[in-house]
Amino acid sequence: MKLYTTKGSGNGYKVALLLSLLNKAHERIIVDFPGGEHKRKPFTELNPRSQVPVLEDNGRVLWDSSACLAYVARKYGGERWLPSDPGQMGEVLQWVAVALNEIQFGLQYGRGIAQGRRSGSFEECAELGRKGLNVLEARLKNNDWLALGRPTIADVACYPYTARAPQANIALAPYPAVVAWIRRIETLPGYLRLD
Amino acid sequence: MKLYTTKGSGNGYKVALLLSLLNKAHERIIVDFPGGEHKRKPFTELNPRSQVPVLEDNGRVLWDSSACLAYVARKYGGERWLPSDPGQMGEVLQWVAVALNEIQFGLQYGRGIAQGRRSGSFEECAELGRKGLNVLEARLKNNDWLALGRPTIADVACYPYTARAPQANIALAPYPAVVAWIRRIETLPGYLRLD
Repeated sequence: MKLYTTKGSGNGYKVALLLSLLNKAHERIIVDFPGGEHKRKPFTELNPRSQVPVLEDNGRVLWDSSACLAYVARKYGGERWLPSDPGQMGEVLQWVAVALNEIQFGLQYGRGIAQGRRSGSFEECAELGRKGLNVLEARLKNNDWLALGRPTIADVACYPYTARAPQANIALAPYPAVVAWIRRIETLPGYLRLD
Repeated sequence: MKLYTTKGSGNGYKVALLLSLLNKAHERIIVDFPGGEHKRKPFTELNPRSQVPVLEDNGRVLWDSSACLAYVARKYGGERWLPSDPGQMGEVLQWVAVALNEIQFGLQYGRGIAQGRRSGSFEECAELGRKGLNVLEARLKNNDWLALGRPTIADVACYPYTARAPQANIALAPYPAVVAWIRRIETLPGYLRLD
């Protein structure tokens, strides 16, 4: 299995984290973003969106972290990380949607702006990111995990850019349940360190 | 089954469209957005994000259109609209991610700005929206449907705000394969009209 990613990509990291939690080996291929490799063939034939991660497994190519997580969970994680039961799957995927919305467009892009790698309004990103943190905090105040009472791809999807929020100049101190959840993830067997 | 939505919500409409394609009845509950009902209890107890759609079925409450679509597809659509096979599920979900990213933050929010209902940069939204349209066009040039060679929740998720792009002052003429795909969706048995 090949995982195309970059050294700093939190979205590529999510897939590597799930594979590590499942004790499943993969080959890591670093895409040269500064050199524009992601905007040229052959990479654009793997992913027309010019983004990482891309996962290649048994001849199947998938892009977008959410789709890669779902694939790995269903292929190598049985019913544990993304169940096939409709209600349970919905419960997991609603939190994956928070990762794709408030966390990506808020915390991730806010961090990119704060670090000078992106243009856009930091304040708009921070506002959206804090909305996401409030929703996570409300859920985690009375629950150890985002969905189903156990670790799922919901947690894996939301974790990296939430944990990195302080790098976006967004303090996590007002969100103690989120901080406790981050520590909980970081002590899971097979946890892979987030840089 | 209860679907909480608003009259104009394309995200609520997606769920209603899938239910209609599956010939499955539901009760439609209009949330009073102008009156701020979505920001108050009891609605915020259904959805802490203060958004529509919310689906209530057999005592289960789900929010986010992507999670609602996955639930309905798995509960009432067998293996057809969202298969449990890992690779096939991944293929569908990668396009659902485009709906949550380029289409929502590009075409949907661009339309909101163009119609005076949102603040933000129209040009940034339009640029992201056109990236999404290019990815859809490249896929649909040689495929009738976004995933699996048949209609799935990928098409349902991407359709509404793509079809409404002209209302965001983004013409679809440069994307003929997208236009043909829109017509294809609109002739599916059980299609529900998009206003």
